[in-house]
Amino acid sequence: MAHSPVSLLPGQSPLLVVISGPSGVGKDTVIQELKRRNLPLHVVVTATDRLPRAGEVDGVDYHFVSTQRFEEMIRNHELIEYARVYDDYKGIPRREVTDAMQSGKDVIFRVDVQGAARLRQLFPEAVMIFLLPASMEELEARLAARHTETPETLKKRIETAREEMKRLNEFEYAVVNADGQLEKTIEQILAILTAEHLKVKPRTYSL
Amino acid sequence: MAHSPVSLLPGQSPLLVVISGPSGVGKDTVIQELKRRNLPLHVVVTATDRLPRAGEVDGVDYHFVSTQRFEEMIRNHELIEYARVYDDYKGIPRREVTDAMQSGKDVIFRVDVQGAARLRQLFPEAVMIFLLPASMEELEARLAARHTETPETLKKRIETAREEMKRLNEFEYAVVNADGQLEKTIEQILAILTAEHLKVKPRTYSL
Repeated sequence: MAHSPVSLLPGQSPLLVVISGPSGVGKDTVIQELKRRNLPLHVVVTATDRLPRAGEVDGVDYHFVSTQRFEEMIRNHELIEYARVYDDYKGIPRREVTDAMQSGKDVIFRVDVQGAARLRQLFPEAVMIFLLPASMEELEARLAARHTETPETLKKRIETAREEMKRLNEFEYAVVNADGQLEKTIEQILAILTAEHLKVKPRTYSL
Repeated sequence: MAHSPVSLLPGQSPLLVVISGPSGVGKDTVIQELKRRNLPLHVVVTATDRLPRAGEVDGVDYHFVSTQRFEEMIRNHELIEYARVYDDYKGIPRREVTDAMQSGKDVIFRVDVQGAARLRQLFPEAVMIFLLPASMEELEARLAARHTETPETLKKRIETAREEMKRLNEFEYAVVNADGQLEKTIEQILAILTAEHLKVKPRTYSL
């Protein structure tokens, strides 16, 4: 007996997913691991007019463009949102999102907690995931290990991370990214994406 | 550096999960497979005053009790809900749910779509999962294969299943249980449970 050609499942539309968390929680490591796997998802690359730093690759770390081109993107409404950070422009090209969605891929935004709040305003139905450390001590140890800074600067970073931790309740999902447990973190993020794709009522976004 | 003894995760409370779907979709097979695995979940066993049929085991298929005992359970408010189906009582003992939750287990209800609607009224925040066939042809083939009935009775069963399929929109999640794909079905159900446990705002139930 032949299967019906029409799927009985509700429409499987791509998701917009925000992955955030305090400074030092390991957002970049998690994103790198997600990219390494052969998954139908696209990690959004921000555009900026600042110059690349050593090791930064155009189209991977950022889309590096001239200030003139960036301001043209603003005028042409090519950016979903943008901000002037210190002396540099940063913005999300609309095509980063629309192209990925049109090819059926989930769109991942890797942002700090302030960026997450702005994205939630733009996309109230985005899937909001907050990465947590296993403990505050682990977070502080990571911040201490990766920055060669004065004790005062480190203290400031830790205070900022503690403030960022308080914004957990603005998120829908919390995933612990513990030291040496990257596989578990990835599995839990993928479980969230799987479950969200099984929702009967799809989330909707206006781009 | 010692880990903080206090988890940074929000409270991990047990879930109430309703697994339903049309007649013939394979609810029992899915539940048996879930029970076979060593998971922290409890499948609710209904109480009834009817006599066990051949092969039915007390405490597994049903809690078989006398009519006198069943009516005592009604008077003592020991049942979350009950109904008289034809000449038999059927009901859900409250302790089936409270004992499992107190030991930290998710509680699974395996019910037909009518039962699912009643459970949603009792527990508006229950996780509602609808099992779908891969196609209506597959569902009809399964109904035809497992019943030795007249063509008229089979036709009636198929009509009922088609009506039941229309209630998909009353559910939150839809999982396809295709022939020969039980592993995928189980993985998707477990992804839903994993994701629900990662929710920042826990679901609440009044028992």
